[in-house]
Amino acid sequence: MADDVVTGAEALVSAAAHSGADLCFANPGTTEMPLVAALDRITGVRAVLGLHENVCTGAADGYARITGKAALTLLHLGPGLANGLANLHNARRANTPLVNIVGDHTSTHLPYDAPLTSDIAALAATVGTVHTVTDRASIGEATRTAFDDAHRLLGVSTLIVPADHQQHSAPVQPVKPAAMPSRAPVSVEAVQNVAQRLRTAGARAVLLLGGNALSRKGQEAAGRIAAKTGLALYSETFPARAERGGGLPAIDRLPYFPETAAAVLREAQAVIVAGAEDPVAYFGYDGVPSVLTQPGTLVRLARPHEDAEEALLELADLLGGVDPVRPGPLSESPGSGEPLSGRTIGQVVASVLPENAIVSVEGGTSGYPFYTASASAPSHTVLTNTGGAIGQGLPCALGAAIAAPDRPVIALQSDGSGLYTAQALWTMAREQTNVIVLIAANHTYNVLRTELGRHGNAEFGPQATALTSLADPRVDWVALARGFGVPATRAATVAELRHTFTDAVGIGGPSLIEMAL
Amino acid sequence: MADDVVTGAEALVSAAAHSGADLCFANPGTTEMPLVAALDRITGVRAVLGLHENVCTGAADGYARITGKAALTLLHLGPGLANGLANLHNARRANTPLVNIVGDHTSTHLPYDAPLTSDIAALAATVGTVHTVTDRASIGEATRTAFDDAHRLLGVSTLIVPADHQQHSAPVQPVKPAAMPSRAPVSVEAVQNVAQRLRTAGARAVLLLGGNALSRKGQEAAGRIAAKTGLALYSETFPARAERGGGLPAIDRLPYFPETAAAVLREAQAVIVAGAEDPVAYFGYDGVPSVLTQPGTLVRLARPHEDAEEALLELADLLGGVDPVRPGPLSESPGSGEPLSGRTIGQVVASVLPENAIVSVEGGTSGYPFYTASASAPSHTVLTNTGGAIGQGLPCALGAAIAAPDRPVIALQSDGSGLYTAQALWTMAREQTNVIVLIAANHTYNVLRTELGRHGNAEFGPQATALTSLADPRVDWVALARGFGVPATRAATVAELRHTFTDAVGIGGPSLIEMAL
Repeated sequence: MADDVVTGAEALVSAAAHSGADLCFANPGTTEMPLVAALDRITGVRAVLGLHENVCTGAADGYARITGKAALTLLHLGPGLANGLANLHNARRANTPLVNIVGDHTSTHLPYDAPLTSDIAALAATVGTVHTVTDRASIGEATRTAFDDAHRLLGVSTLIVPADHQQHSAPVQPVKPAAMPSRAPVSVEAVQNVAQRLRTAGARAVLLLGGNALSRKGQEAAGRIAAKTGLALYSETFPARAERGGGLPAIDRLPYFPETAAAVLREAQAVIVAGAEDPVAYFGYDGVPSVLTQPGTLVRLARPHEDAEEALLELADLLGGVDPVRPGPLSESPGSGEPLSGRTIGQVVASVLPENAIVSVEGGTSGYPFYTASASAPSHTVLTNTGGAIGQGLPCALGAAIAAPDRPVIALQSDGSGLYTAQALWTMAREQTNVIVLIAANHTYNVLRTELGRHGNAEFGPQATALTSLADPRVDWVALARGFGVPATRAATVAELRHTFTDAVGIGGPSLIEMAL
Repeated sequence: MADDVVTGAEALVSAAAHSGADLCFANPGTTEMPLVAALDRITGVRAVLGLHENVCTGAADGYARITGKAALTLLHLGPGLANGLANLHNARRANTPLVNIVGDHTSTHLPYDAPLTSDIAALAATVGTVHTVTDRASIGEATRTAFDDAHRLLGVSTLIVPADHQQHSAPVQPVKPAAMPSRAPVSVEAVQNVAQRLRTAGARAVLLLGGNALSRKGQEAAGRIAAKTGLALYSETFPARAERGGGLPAIDRLPYFPETAAAVLREAQAVIVAGAEDPVAYFGYDGVPSVLTQPGTLVRLARPHEDAEEALLELADLLGGVDPVRPGPLSESPGSGEPLSGRTIGQVVASVLPENAIVSVEGGTSGYPFYTASASAPSHTVLTNTGGAIGQGLPCALGAAIAAPDRPVIALQSDGSGLYTAQALWTMAREQTNVIVLIAANHTYNVLRTELGRHGNAEFGPQATALTSLADPRVDWVALARGFGVPATRAATVAELRHTFTDAVGIGGPSLIEMAL
């Protein structure tokens, strides 16, 4: 900046850049125009356009999961924020540091309740902290505070900025940068306490990993502990980010359905949670306990915001951990003529997976089988849907690809959830991201048919059938992808998937393969 | 019902049917499965699936605008409601009676903060009233109350229903139906007061119509008043529903930009609002007043919730209104070889428009020119985006088509906003609706380029250019439509549009024409 006087918008962009922001997933409108102009005047923050705000927020989540620092979004008023709330909900559940900048009407215009006026702060408060800029002078400090919140709380923080405060000019006021994200350390006493519990429980213990316990170091330490004591290892069911493969111990996810998950934990004298939430049922059902652990067995080594990785390293040393058990090579390889199913897709994807890939997994059809198969795959990173708001997988893959342009990204995506944010394909094309989208196209909301059965409805009437079917008409993903500028093809057998996926990995993304189930 | 004992979900569906619901725009999940089952066991409410909740809520808005009674949605937890909030915002601004049924976790499961838990009530409160079912017994009454709210307040009402209360059975309890929507009458004194003001002001008056003043009767009465006194007639800028054409007086919309709108009202000694909100600027700008009327000139004949139509009939009688001025035939007809532009599109669409059509208009490119041209078209109904949350036009057209299967529906849609809820195309195909979608594809967020200029940024930098461009890559609407099962074609000239649109009207929808600009 040559001048001493900058607009509020320029002060905001400058403060964001000083707090570590280098990218902004944006869909701005009229009330954000000074910010859009400022992005050209202040260097350091590159804007990436999404065709829908839920693409922006989901991409920001994926970006932050890979970079480890707060991602930035720019959204238009209450409706723009509302459109992005579902993936902000997922980001909240992922403990992702994320800052939303939301424009509002010029402050003097707010009392007139113009058509686009709404309660932005109430919406934002459902996913995290909220700050509202009340004058031009405080805009830099307010931006820093928003980043501080995101980094300190590992969560979502929203800054509401009326258009006049963006537009007015004032002398530059230096703003010190926000603190970078960090995790609170676990006390020595807590580690010692867990060590004591594990010495008593021996093999009748479960260690449940989440948060940064799912780093390579964390899982190695957990593997050493398991090899020493014989305890069982699980990952939380929907990790924000889990390293996997490349010789890491094979650590399955805690099962999804509460009866199965409770059965896994039933015999344990101690269930140690390290970076994971206390294990509870995903949904409540009549006669099925919400709490999955037996009374008195739950022991918290590290909460999701704490440094579970370091705690596990200390624990492994205390217990005298030994070399972990490594998974063998991929045991099963489906025949070329076999039809595609969740199982065969998981095996093919795991067997073709390139080294150092990022895999964004959304949907049960191929998600679970892939996880089972991928323990033996090359080293990769898995991102999952942490909050259950569907439409997360494609935006998350997009954000991850922009965060790590040198890594191949695979989006292993069910069709029903993929249709929520198919617009992400367009930004994948525009940004020339190396994302290969694999759509498991069974043309049903299959999980709902299972749930209908669980609610005692063995036979579906015509309305229940229609409400869980995407088959009439069949969505043509190849056409959709081409509509958004992404080359696409279709695979119907194991051989076709192996062939097209191998080709796609060789060429590099973006591309899409519709896997016909 | 043969039994005396029904589930809570069945009691809810039954109460909704008794309160006038015959249709439900739905995207349910696990916590709504008892309701899905109940839709098959209780007759009367047909479910229509949307691939995204903002399709459901926008369709419900369009459905209610045409039927005049509350539309029903079924949404999944907080994220499902969040996804539909943008079009609920528009419905709120349209004074549309609309009831959302939102499932929640089984009540005993809520304290455990499972991944999909969120503050549903806080989200719902941003768009209307909220009720939460707290036991099985009260579910019928709670449903009736939700409909009462929607009908009485002409607004959005949300009923949150934990899954256990849906699933448990109890004896049938008869619920009396909700009162049907009605508008409060305007007092005789208010009408007399306005008559007096108009006698004084003469031709130096403006009559601004909104709400049910935009019925055929209301506009006829307004035309009689104008013919008698010489006052100027305007419609609110974004009417929820306006009848138009077929010999109705040509009533333009109040201009969008505040300077132009204020100029239109500046010389008036009296600005009478009948069913419209007080005229204020859409956005606030430095140095531009938010209030568009001069001090002391605003006179409220009827508020948006009041019976403006009846008040205008009385006013016309009091003033001795005379036959209104009728618009002449379409004056301009663009040449066949002319390129497509907002103007030529508006003229072609108006000239080909079938009798009794419903036109859902979203976006400025062709929306304003069409309105200008359509005064001379056959009788039709116009629906516009009342709240400014984009992605409203396609769902609204879908809902209108389902409400009036005997009427052709035209969606005159800009591309940027259309991409927000393109998933509506799939439900148009599934329900075999007679909707013809006309996409004005200029591949830019054009309104934002105008607004950038208004904010003093005459030259756009590369980031501002990128954030307002949809051209790289160009979205292929023909491919998108086919992907969703809707036949599609492209038109690049006046002759091509006239030809393809005439054909499409003859064949009946659903179909889509990408209009290349």
